[in-house]
Amino acid sequence: MKGFAMIRINRVGWIEKEKPTCGPKDALVRPLAVSPCTSDVHTVYEGAIGERTNLILGHEAVGVVAEVGNLVRDFKPGDKVIIPAITPDWEAVESQMGFSQHSGGMLNGWKFSNVKDGVFAEFFHVNEADGNMALLPENVSVEEGVMLSDMVPTGFHGADNARVAYGETVAVIGIGPVGLMAVAGANLRGAGRIFAVGSRAVCKEAARKYGATDIIDYKNGDVAVQIREAMKNKPVDKVIIAGGDLATFEQALKIVRPGGIVSNVNYLGEGDHIKINRLDWGVGMGHIEIIGGLMPGGRKNMEYLSNLLKYKKLDVNPLLTHRFKGFEFVEKGLALMKDKPADLIKPVITI
Amino acid sequence: MKGFAMIRINRVGWIEKEKPTCGPKDALVRPLAVSPCTSDVHTVYEGAIGERTNLILGHEAVGVVAEVGNLVRDFKPGDKVIIPAITPDWEAVESQMGFSQHSGGMLNGWKFSNVKDGVFAEFFHVNEADGNMALLPENVSVEEGVMLSDMVPTGFHGADNARVAYGETVAVIGIGPVGLMAVAGANLRGAGRIFAVGSRAVCKEAARKYGATDIIDYKNGDVAVQIREAMKNKPVDKVIIAGGDLATFEQALKIVRPGGIVSNVNYLGEGDHIKINRLDWGVGMGHIEIIGGLMPGGRKNMEYLSNLLKYKKLDVNPLLTHRFKGFEFVEKGLALMKDKPADLIKPVITI
Amino acid sequence: MKGFAMIRINRVGWIEKEKPTCGPKDALVRPLAVSPCTSDVHTVYEGAIGERTNLILGHEAVGVVAEVGNLVRDFKPGDKVIIPAITPDWEAVESQMGFSQHSGGMLNGWKFSNVKDGVFAEFFHVNEADGNMALLPENVSVEEGVMLSDMVPTGFHGADNARVAYGETVAVIGIGPVGLMAVAGANLRGAGRIFAVGSRAVCKEAARKYGATDIIDYKNGDVAVQIREAMKNKPVDKVIIAGGDLATFEQALKIVRPGGIVSNVNYLGEGDHIKINRLDWGVGMGHIEIIGGLMPGGRKNMEYLSNLLKYKKLDVNPLLTHRFKGFEFVEKGLALMKDKPADLIKPVITI
Amino acid sequence: MKGFAMIRINRVGWIEKEKPTCGPKDALVRPLAVSPCTSDVHTVYEGAIGERTNLILGHEAVGVVAEVGNLVRDFKPGDKVIIPAITPDWEAVESQMGFSQHSGGMLNGWKFSNVKDGVFAEFFHVNEADGNMALLPENVSVEEGVMLSDMVPTGFHGADNARVAYGETVAVIGIGPVGLMAVAGANLRGAGRIFAVGSRAVCKEAARKYGATDIIDYKNGDVAVQIREAMKNKPVDKVIIAGGDLATFEQALKIVRPGGIVSNVNYLGEGDHIKINRLDWGVGMGHIEIIGGLMPGGRKNMEYLSNLLKYKKLDVNPLLTHRFKGFEFVEKGLALMKDKPADLIKPVITI
Repeated sequence: MKGFAMIRINRVGWIEKEKPTCGPKDALVRPLAVSPCTSDVHTVYEGAIGERTNLILGHEAVGVVAEVGNLVRDFKPGDKVIIPAITPDWEAVESQMGFSQHSGGMLNGWKFSNVKDGVFAEFFHVNEADGNMALLPENVSVEEGVMLSDMVPTGFHGADNARVAYGETVAVIGIGPVGLMAVAGANLRGAGRIFAVGSRAVCKEAARKYGATDIIDYKNGDVAVQIREAMKNKPVDKVIIAGGDLATFEQALKIVRPGGIVSNVNYLGEGDHIKINRLDWGVGMGHIEIIGGLMPGGRKNMEYLSNLLKYKKLDVNPLLTHRFKGFEFVEKGLALMKDKPADLIKPVITI
Repeated sequence: MKGFAMIRINRVGWIEKEKPTCGPKDALVRPLAVSPCTSDVHTVYEGAIGERTNLILGHEAVGVVAEVGNLVRDFKPGDKVIIPAITPDWEAVESQMGFSQHSGGMLNGWKFSNVKDGVFAEFFHVNEADGNMALLPENVSVEEGVMLSDMVPTGFHGADNARVAYGETVAVIGIGPVGLMAVAGANLRGAGRIFAVGSRAVCKEAARKYGATDIIDYKNGDVAVQIREAMKNKPVDKVIIAGGDLATFEQALKIVRPGGIVSNVNYLGEGDHIKINRLDWGVGMGHIEIIGGLMPGGRKNMEYLSNLLKYKKLDVNPLLTHRFKGFEFVEKGLALMKDKPADLIKPVITI
Repeated sequence: MKGFAMIRINRVGWIEKEKPTCGPKDALVRPLAVSPCTSDVHTVYEGAIGERTNLILGHEAVGVVAEVGNLVRDFKPGDKVIIPAITPDWEAVESQMGFSQHSGGMLNGWKFSNVKDGVFAEFFHVNEADGNMALLPENVSVEEGVMLSDMVPTGFHGADNARVAYGETVAVIGIGPVGLMAVAGANLRGAGRIFAVGSRAVCKEAARKYGATDIIDYKNGDVAVQIREAMKNKPVDKVIIAGGDLATFEQALKIVRPGGIVSNVNYLGEGDHIKINRLDWGVGMGHIEIIGGLMPGGRKNMEYLSNLLKYKKLDVNPLLTHRFKGFEFVEKGLALMKDKPADLIKPVITI
Repeated sequence: MKGFAMIRINRVGWIEKEKPTCGPKDALVRPLAVSPCTSDVHTVYEGAIGERTNLILGHEAVGVVAEVGNLVRDFKPGDKVIIPAITPDWEAVESQMGFSQHSGGMLNGWKFSNVKDGVFAEFFHVNEADGNMALLPENVSVEEGVMLSDMVPTGFHGADNARVAYGETVAVIGIGPVGLMAVAGANLRGAGRIFAVGSRAVCKEAARKYGATDIIDYKNGDVAVQIREAMKNKPVDKVIIAGGDLATFEQALKIVRPGGIVSNVNYLGEGDHIKINRLDWGVGMGHIEIIGGLMPGGRKNMEYLSNLLKYKKLDVNPLLTHRFKGFEFVEKGLALMKDKPADLIKPVITI
């Protein structure tokens, strides 16, 4: 079968591979819509997960079930399904603890285009199919559905970890597609004032649609200073980091209240240390929680998050700035994510 | 001063009383807008809290500060403030435990028109003013603000206690003003499908505005049967009870999932026992939590909930079906709450 | 193979059956120690789960792995393992929600001697072996280990659901082996004063060992009255119900504080309704949480709870009042659980 | 009145001061037992809170009520009371949020020998007496009781913030008196294996008494390496930091599991930044929570923690290595805390 792969660090291309085999609890899926992700860019062009050769890329897909193992109970060939980027081993002790993302070890719930081939292929393999796929609701398009693989759950996980509550003031730093979903997620947890920190016009506009009340452009000066000014020097309740770099945490600590939370969902691709300013952190006694987490995958999350689309509580269409038809456009899509033109939020390719 | 009072059970009227005295941490407030509540009706016409004589009624108000004690730090005469129905003693051990509603004993955080005179007076007394009032945001009207005293916090408390999470299916039983705010609260915690159970057209229409996806009219048959049918026999995640009577709990247990929550915010005014069906409750092992709670009062909640109005996340105007100008209309407002005409959700009186 | 079975309601006996087959993720285990449970008595003599024929009984066992499926990664024949009474399907949506006890439906995580043969057999079958067994620590005997299958996790779950915190006052109603473990569990969550309610001397003595500070004998009068007296009319923080019947809940509500929790782990075998007194429950507003739950099973819980034995934080030997050697004594053990002689807490049979 | 004060940075001595005045909600207390704390040493000799002149030191005391304001309801002259180091303003919005430590701003719940005179005086002032004092139980000595002011609540807060659960493996870094109470606190939340990291024999011995199963001496090599070795390279569940310096966090991250918690209760007196290793922190996605918090004060915590002493769940006597009789020994006590002789854990002075 054909797949679009990382040939090696810094090089991508189309390759031929064997169709994966399907274990008794697994499924093979043919993609109907996929979307390249900044993580794919990190993987290929920054070597974020180390050298890989001929590894098929991609971890965001809606597809149609092609084959299921004999122990799969709830899905059958022909079913249209959402597949999350994270597909845990559900028996693992870590999963039983509530941290399925780390089933079998830190981040090991992430399998696509990491420890096995990804979804940019004619067929891809889903482990523990009953636990890791969800039916696409009838009134949700495949393009919309593919946003449930990673963008929605990652952004919303940021808001969940921040335990956003009614009327709280939340700052979301970074408003690419994940940050926009963090804005939407904070809004859907009842935030009051929402600061969205970004610079591109298309993202700012989308942020307002998703509930941001204030836009902070880092090109206009120090983010922390701007936010404290807008807040008349009162701290915000929560900060969600969905962009930036290691230094972003220092900014977050300048604006968050005692008892507040800094919640990271940004993949930290480089640098040695996050630095937590001792005084801003209340000499170790300020109850400012610092947490960062990979999105939770699995069927339950896909089913519940897809309810938000099905029942019109969330519209992901503002994210889908670039739509292509045809498998071959995967290449173009990845290039867009790499180059980030001014009008891009997220490309989607239907097949 | 003049006040509108419960003369005794079953009789209301205007009375003259001494202006209350203001302790060192207290405030006296002159009302700008008030709203009668079904609880006032219970108090007067059902003797819900027992006999009372010449007790000034009312616990929902926005007002202007007239006087403050010498230990009050954050408010001064002239400030426009929201006063919550529940005004706890903040030092109490119960408050320190997170249950300020029960400061000093079960339900003792509720003082207005219960253990002291209420807000339907020329002046009313607020204990621990720094902890129990909040400034009315500039872009929130006094009519809107008065919905923050009880309707918003009570309905939202129902959703909070139900720990509504993204994409969950929630049934709200009872869609008077509190139930409508429970719908809005569930919606603002990210619910997916929301069943609203009620019968009056004005309430159904408002429920849809607040996020209900399905309306269930109990006049069309058994509520549990109707919901299970709409759910194709799957259970709902959470049930919020904001109306009905003791028997409503039996209905709730017929529709909620293992691990689900039945969250009550309905004042249960009569009857002996709630009955929990042994089998529906999983022979005691189904992890179905049953909880009911008085709204949390205090300044923090008022400040945070008012943010939802200030930042346009919640519009309470659909609740305000009947607006009056003039203190004398308090009487009319209470009569409306008692008679519940078809077009009524909530009356508000500005003074 | 031979097994000790429920022939039909009210009749038990030894039967011959086919050895179970082992699926790719499963294991077959040969028991080394087993213990009959009151639930077995309910099953046989009260028809608690309905009619069953030739169903092998038992759900508490330590054993040695005899065979594993080809997808089992972490266990091999010869391993000594603890098997929990509850062996969930870990992929299930309910498990992903944190309610693995109800994987596939209410209480469906309970499989042994319910939907399949139990552990009183030469061999028994464990579904999803990697997720549902744990290695027996070297310094823990098989007799001790078998208390981890049900007694320890059920009692401790009662304390967990009660969210017992430092210095709280807890009443444990019922001090059979589960109730005793609820006492120990409350103690190990930092309870201060612990009331243990029971009547048999052997249980009272054990309760004191496990941390009870006060013993209440229901033969000396109304339990709620006795506890309120001892408390000088102050309420307790939490109540754990580990015995009694439906009426026990009414007692619990007479002693628990606003904001408190009534946590049930007693299998409620008969009766129609639990009755919640409206006034004791604070007219629906007292924040008294009522919860009941089946113990969580699975490997993680077995590993963590076995740590308590391994590191000498918990000694289960006081439970083991009757020890037998020889498979044939299973019958005697069950008879003991049925007859409950004065000196019995729990029998254990090593094989 | 006489008091033992910080004259200025690096200089202590006895001074004469006016007896404090007692507001309507306040109390004046005469100390019966006090204990100097490492924080006093930081304050005086490291200028941790900046320059102060003639500031009476001390924040750990049991005393007898000498005077109460006219609004104080629950205490009267002659009552023997425990006074917590942290005495919040209970009306404050932060207190209403559950972070009373930061009432009025970061760390502002800490008043003694910080923003007002401390307890090493003939009389000291307690704000909001009803909310900030607790009766000393009859069977608890004044020496024991004084450990409830800071040592017990601070150590236990470390275990609470770490959300230690049954059977977890916990590493406590630093086993001075606070660290020892963190060991006891972890033990009383049901930890299984407990690593205690320290070097002095007297502390190691006490750590074992409080539940430590393994002692790690940092003089024997890198702490993280030693713990990982003892754990056969498995991570621990939780780390409580109760000593060390900013670099200690780097060690903690080397041993904690994905989904684990690093909980700090060590006052971080110097240095610029805590450094969080990007890879150890799972590239921002490992769900390792980092939290640090000042102990919660107030009456409720004193009442509940004192229950542990009253009901013999916790014995603080092993902490009290040096006992003095006579107010004048305060000076000697502070000198001991500064010099930390080999046999010292904590001095206590009865008056």
